[in-house]
Amino acid sequence: MIKVNENYLKLPGSYLFSTIARKVAAYRESNPEKEIISLGIGDVTQPLAPEIIEMLHKAVDEMAVRESFHGYAPDQGYSFLRETIAANDYQARGCDISADEIFISDGAKSDSANIQEIFGSSCRIAVCDPVYPVYVDSNVMAGRTGTYDPDQGTWSNVIYMPCTAENYFVPAFPVENPDIIYLCIPNNPTGTTLTRFQLQEWVDYACRIGAVIIYDAAYEAYIREADVPHSIYECQGAGNCAIEIRSFSKNAGFTGVRLGFTVVPKSLKVGDVSLHSLWARRQGTKFNGAPYIIQRAGQACYSPEGKASLKNQVDYYMENARLIKEGLKLCGYDAFGGVNAPYIWMKTPEGMDSWTFFDILLKEANVVGTPGSGFGPSGRGYFRLTAFGSHENTRKAMDRIKAL
Amino acid sequence: MIKVNENYLKLPGSYLFSTIARKVAAYRESNPEKEIISLGIGDVTQPLAPEIIEMLHKAVDEMAVRESFHGYAPDQGYSFLRETIAANDYQARGCDISADEIFISDGAKSDSANIQEIFGSSCRIAVCDPVYPVYVDSNVMAGRTGTYDPDQGTWSNVIYMPCTAENYFVPAFPVENPDIIYLCIPNNPTGTTLTRFQLQEWVDYACRIGAVIIYDAAYEAYIREADVPHSIYECQGAGNCAIEIRSFSKNAGFTGVRLGFTVVPKSLKVGDVSLHSLWARRQGTKFNGAPYIIQRAGQACYSPEGKASLKNQVDYYMENARLIKEGLKLCGYDAFGGVNAPYIWMKTPEGMDSWTFFDILLKEANVVGTPGSGFGPSGRGYFRLTAFGSHENTRKAMDRIKAL
Repeated sequence: MIKVNENYLKLPGSYLFSTIARKVAAYRESNPEKEIISLGIGDVTQPLAPEIIEMLHKAVDEMAVRESFHGYAPDQGYSFLRETIAANDYQARGCDISADEIFISDGAKSDSANIQEIFGSSCRIAVCDPVYPVYVDSNVMAGRTGTYDPDQGTWSNVIYMPCTAENYFVPAFPVENPDIIYLCIPNNPTGTTLTRFQLQEWVDYACRIGAVIIYDAAYEAYIREADVPHSIYECQGAGNCAIEIRSFSKNAGFTGVRLGFTVVPKSLKVGDVSLHSLWARRQGTKFNGAPYIIQRAGQACYSPEGKASLKNQVDYYMENARLIKEGLKLCGYDAFGGVNAPYIWMKTPEGMDSWTFFDILLKEANVVGTPGSGFGPSGRGYFRLTAFGSHENTRKAMDRIKAL
Repeated sequence: MIKVNENYLKLPGSYLFSTIARKVAAYRESNPEKEIISLGIGDVTQPLAPEIIEMLHKAVDEMAVRESFHGYAPDQGYSFLRETIAANDYQARGCDISADEIFISDGAKSDSANIQEIFGSSCRIAVCDPVYPVYVDSNVMAGRTGTYDPDQGTWSNVIYMPCTAENYFVPAFPVENPDIIYLCIPNNPTGTTLTRFQLQEWVDYACRIGAVIIYDAAYEAYIREADVPHSIYECQGAGNCAIEIRSFSKNAGFTGVRLGFTVVPKSLKVGDVSLHSLWARRQGTKFNGAPYIIQRAGQACYSPEGKASLKNQVDYYMENARLIKEGLKLCGYDAFGGVNAPYIWMKTPEGMDSWTFFDILLKEANVVGTPGSGFGPSGRGYFRLTAFGSHENTRKAMDRIKAL
């Protein structure tokens, strides 16, 4: 008899951003004269850099002519892009990663959701708490997470690693050994990082217990401090225990352009099985490559002029991060992140519930943020603000928060 | 202890196109003076239509300006595209499909590989034999297919529905009831179709036994005959038993542009669970939309001028199909398909093995095709030629085959 995937039915409603949208819409309807500023969703607002636009036009023109038309892309992505990534993001930093260990994709969300497929269903995952919901939800759908406790907001078979102000947002090694460890550095939602030394300890730990680290480095471009690693492969031994996922969404404004990649070192094995060959098989069977014109746009991010433009864009957002964090501190709030990441993670005043603070901010300041509890139980009593707005709106939002 | 997904290890090597590539490369190396013509892979060769190019440039320019920049797309795709598809591909044919039943994706391959995720692991699948390998392989990876018999080329828990000259390539209802039935009409690789009456019988059968049909209509644009349905929703009751997958790859030359969509009617349920809501959850969790500029390119396919250009492109390829089929018949070969599809499926002469015929064609005529045995056991003794080359090359290839 036909059955649905019952794991899907275990998922609690993913109501975070839809609840926010509904609350904002309701407020807007009763208060049409109010100008609402969103520092909520992690979506970019700056247009694409001129070098990227130029390359897109050029690639579009190639598709108009038979001689330069491109059909199906190579399975792992075009080598012009993979070679560029290997040289710039890895070899230039002393990381021993080659082009054929890089798999081009349509974005970090797809990759971070799909990567669990190559592991057995009995594997136990560990996640930081709070966390980007895709890591957990994709494992729920695969049946790895046990049962859901709606009061705690936790799954019985997931290892949670709390990251709070109390431990300076540095996760401790769990008591029980996980098989797969998800780390997102710089972190979404807290905006905090690990130092190279701290990450090396995680790599050593994973190698010791035989776990694989899924390292999400989507916010790498925002790193400002010298002791924060840009890639996990800066750590000794990571080639034996880590998969790294990267995005063009936040460094180049590609949230609506869709491009990312995953690095699976050829040295990474489970028993005698190469994870590189499993991921190659997964992508070769279920994916048909990122568009040619988009892969060319990705290449444009690495020209000297492209790099300069993207640095300006990131600097623009980081000026917002500075404005937000300093503003919050001036008001006496505890605020974290925002130094190596576009996210500022604040404690709600007087231990207020995250959603209560959301409502107050919406109604009193007409500013929208994201309740920390939406990212996991250890996010309760926290609140996320993002640096992806305009300077003008960010300044205005902070003036309103100060006036509260 | 960490384990890999052992289902991946059961997959036999996917050597069809890589073996072809290797054999061609070896021949080319020993015979550098020979001009080889490929009628092998199903990749398009005509450049994108001018209306699509124009729209791509326009959308790229929008991305260059803050006011018209597009970040994350709506989960199911932009409504400008979904509304256009619903009106043109469905409502204009009398099919009761609305825009909110359409999910835009990066292509039919991803969707046809991912759709099995929403079903339980105990579901039994039925496939036509020969078949597009993605349907089976994605189910192998999910652990639904049992064990592989390398001699037969079959999986113990898959129901095969032979489609051969003996049954006019019309699959018979299987003896055992399947839960999920994959149908690709017009068919890859055979190029054959079902009439509306025959498809209605499949819809009635699926409704009767409570199965879901995954209907892959990627080659719909090639249909010439009036009694071949363009959509399964032309059949009564299909809204209760069928999911339809569509592609822009072959009708608009988007193999390197990447765009497709899947229709999941809101009326389609398993028990009381809506498959529409499960697929929405799957895509919302694991996918971040097709690029804005590509969705605009998809929209351009439906303007009166865009439609006219694409019809010319399809006509161009279908002229190749006619050349190939008539040429083969002149030589006395049994040839099928090519009337409502860009594929011609021929019997090898004198019951010759598919790979032997491949070698002869490569060496004696310098023409590359695809051995039918690569698509399943009932493809043995058959051979696929595709219509996606240029007229000049196709004519030249057929002259060489005739001279054999």
